[in-house]
Amino acid sequence: MTFRRQHLLGLEELSRNEILHVLDTARSFRSVLERPVKKVPSLRGVTVCNAFFEDSTRTRLSFDLAAKRLSADTIAFSKSGSSVAKGETLLDTVRNIQAMKVDMVVIRHGSSGASHYLARNLDAHVINAGDGFHEHPTQGLLDIYTMRERFGTIEGLRVAIVGDIAHSRVARSNLWGLTKLGAHVTVVGPQTLLPVEIERLGVKVTTRLDEALADAQVVNVLRLQLERMTSGLLPSLREYAHYFGISSHRLPRREDLLVMHPGPMNRGVEITPEVADGPQSVILDQVTNGVAVRMAVLFLVWGGTSVEPPAEVARA
Amino acid sequence: MTFRRQHLLGLEELSRNEILHVLDTARSFRSVLERPVKKVPSLRGVTVCNAFFEDSTRTRLSFDLAAKRLSADTIAFSKSGSSVAKGETLLDTVRNIQAMKVDMVVIRHGSSGASHYLARNLDAHVINAGDGFHEHPTQGLLDIYTMRERFGTIEGLRVAIVGDIAHSRVARSNLWGLTKLGAHVTVVGPQTLLPVEIERLGVKVTTRLDEALADAQVVNVLRLQLERMTSGLLPSLREYAHYFGISSHRLPRREDLLVMHPGPMNRGVEITPEVADGPQSVILDQVTNGVAVRMAVLFLVWGGTSVEPPAEVARA
Amino acid sequence: MTFRRQHLLGLEELSRNEILHVLDTARSFRSVLERPVKKVPSLRGVTVCNAFFEDSTRTRLSFDLAAKRLSADTIAFSKSGSSVAKGETLLDTVRNIQAMKVDMVVIRHGSSGASHYLARNLDAHVINAGDGFHEHPTQGLLDIYTMRERFGTIEGLRVAIVGDIAHSRVARSNLWGLTKLGAHVTVVGPQTLLPVEIERLGVKVTTRLDEALADAQVVNVLRLQLERMTSGLLPSLREYAHYFGISSHRLPRREDLLVMHPGPMNRGVEITPEVADGPQSVILDQVTNGVAVRMAVLFLVWGGTSVEPPAEVARA
Repeated sequence: MTFRRQHLLGLEELSRNEILHVLDTARSFRSVLERPVKKVPSLRGVTVCNAFFEDSTRTRLSFDLAAKRLSADTIAFSKSGSSVAKGETLLDTVRNIQAMKVDMVVIRHGSSGASHYLARNLDAHVINAGDGFHEHPTQGLLDIYTMRERFGTIEGLRVAIVGDIAHSRVARSNLWGLTKLGAHVTVVGPQTLLPVEIERLGVKVTTRLDEALADAQVVNVLRLQLERMTSGLLPSLREYAHYFGISSHRLPRREDLLVMHPGPMNRGVEITPEVADGPQSVILDQVTNGVAVRMAVLFLVWGGTSVEPPAEVARA
Repeated sequence: MTFRRQHLLGLEELSRNEILHVLDTARSFRSVLERPVKKVPSLRGVTVCNAFFEDSTRTRLSFDLAAKRLSADTIAFSKSGSSVAKGETLLDTVRNIQAMKVDMVVIRHGSSGASHYLARNLDAHVINAGDGFHEHPTQGLLDIYTMRERFGTIEGLRVAIVGDIAHSRVARSNLWGLTKLGAHVTVVGPQTLLPVEIERLGVKVTTRLDEALADAQVVNVLRLQLERMTSGLLPSLREYAHYFGISSHRLPRREDLLVMHPGPMNRGVEITPEVADGPQSVILDQVTNGVAVRMAVLFLVWGGTSVEPPAEVARA
Repeated sequence: MTFRRQHLLGLEELSRNEILHVLDTARSFRSVLERPVKKVPSLRGVTVCNAFFEDSTRTRLSFDLAAKRLSADTIAFSKSGSSVAKGETLLDTVRNIQAMKVDMVVIRHGSSGASHYLARNLDAHVINAGDGFHEHPTQGLLDIYTMRERFGTIEGLRVAIVGDIAHSRVARSNLWGLTKLGAHVTVVGPQTLLPVEIERLGVKVTTRLDEALADAQVVNVLRLQLERMTSGLLPSLREYAHYFGISSHRLPRREDLLVMHPGPMNRGVEITPEVADGPQSVILDQVTNGVAVRMAVLFLVWGGTSVEPPAEVARA
């Protein structure tokens, strides 16, 4: 199968088969990460620009590593705060990156739709590394990859997503991907943080954590953005932790129940350290899988076709 | 022909033939940028340090890309504001870069003459990426390259440079290069932003935009540094835009009239979006050509001799 | 001889033979730095993460260069100030770097023991680039390397270390390394900046500079952290410079007396420019040797065994 997308902007527009193809390819790169030499020559001579308009350490490092392990060259551009109107800055950036003949652009931006905007205006391949409240597709893919490796299939899997659903691009990408692959998804959070009409995506909605956890096989715990407090959407951290924090006495003791978190965690708020570091947690597997998923995405979007693990680069 | 310069500090010290040799070499690298694999092995094993003491996104990225496409390794150093007296910081940096056996140093610095100072005190090759009000030679070269590609020759070309001539290192590098190659240059701007005795360079000077545009083949529009307002040299942005802004009703409608700008643009101040994005604009060609020119400069200063496009790096 | 350490955390835990083995290997890489192509393929396919939790320009650049000259890929992470409790940030970083399958981590951190903490919790190889008041082992090694190249052996060498001994990780690494190799070390500084019970390391302690300099063969001058003033440990810079600053009239005029400084210097405080730039100074040799020492450390910790200079990378 050939991946025919020029870009990866969101999971909303991918078909079930396209998602599965990315996951299969990621498995092949995942095995590369277990080798002593974790580098393959697939993107030698290709330039990837990491354009981060919002701060990010782990996603930036993960993409940078993924590109370098494919032997691509990387250049970086970051501009979190700027006096210029955001749209104009992005427009100028778009055109300049284009003109410098960069092959692929990984973009994180605070505005929903920024990566679509880029893709429409660039010849380069665009990878969305998170845009506003819209999507964070590689996070969605790595979450789904992690579930699929444990359970073999997503079809029929019962997944609870807990937290600030309304403002989470991670939730949105999970929802699109999981429903396309046939999971049964329940979202749970305080009423003020649940989006309206979300049932139309075919997911169950509740404000009662215990109900959502009762028969879940996966609990994906979202990071609580602390600025939700100051904006009046939440009364207090303590109350949030009390009603929606995942702790060992709320969590069912089933061995095959997976706990996930996209990081970085607010330990003691949305998740207790005991759970985060406990036997049900696969939070660090997610990080490892994230590098493999991003290698797969860069590889496929560029036009790579084999899913066999490529030979490693020569050491000397 | 061999390029015998150890450094590129300014266009003032280059001969007509040296400038043409850089432009010819740049054309060869420009063709590399159209290949699927835009990388050649010419500077493999060479280390380039990008030392930017002033903020810059596009010039820094352009040099970084140029070095990487020549297969050089790059390290980066930036220090915009520092409590230390500038001279002392620069001295320490000079000596440390030298001692680390870096091969080439690309420097941007707020003080005119900083790159000359470095070149005198370093064994490494020094490339000036902009020093104070003095020169920005790779910008001058890429501007001239862009004109030459369109018109075949600079000899006899009528070029208008518009804006803050007095404080512009871009203007200065353009003036040196263009006059050496036989262009007829007119500079135009408000009286307060025209340097004294500039006629001695052999250029025409005027404060009337329409006069300068009347028979121009190229209009190079300078960025207006907004701090000129606060320092009392300009009454208001609105007045500047009115008298010197390049808009579609000021600009002659000749098809072969090129509009250039070194970027980043203050859209609506020195240039209207209509002109910037219009059919006469070659502003994005300048950006592409900039990478090729910088590849040529790094290559030649290092001692490269062929102007044939080198073979690409092997993909696998 | 094989270097069996997984990490380089400090000189305290190295044996005399291990230190000598690093120095011998560094000599081999030092010769690589004199070649036109200063790059060898020893660590091709290996990823080094430079994790700097404290600002540093020269140490960061030196490690980055060392890794690239060994053909390793580098990724960088820096976080100087953070609202998160330091321990927690470090813990999260540890686990994420681990999960991304990075091979080697170079860490600088404000807390003494940070690199030990990392080494206990990571599979990756850890190199301490300075942790709190504890150790800065590559600085110690490069200082000792520089002395050994000049005098042939450290055995019996008379070394004076001048300044803020109590708060200096550079002093501590020097002391461990020098005493293991049989040097006679004298430390000198104001009473408030001398650690208690330091004589137990087998060094002489004095507060009189002239006494320390009288028969010294090496004077290693420490940087005075200017914040010692505000914390009440020192009355004034002027008084410090008067009693402990190394100037040409305090320094014996022996040709074979070496003056060293780890940089960056406070010229006019702990050392006068005349001495820093004078014939007895080897301060810039230290910087060059630092790259070679760091190449050796990365190479050995990774498991490299040969001390022959490896063949250079192919140019094309």
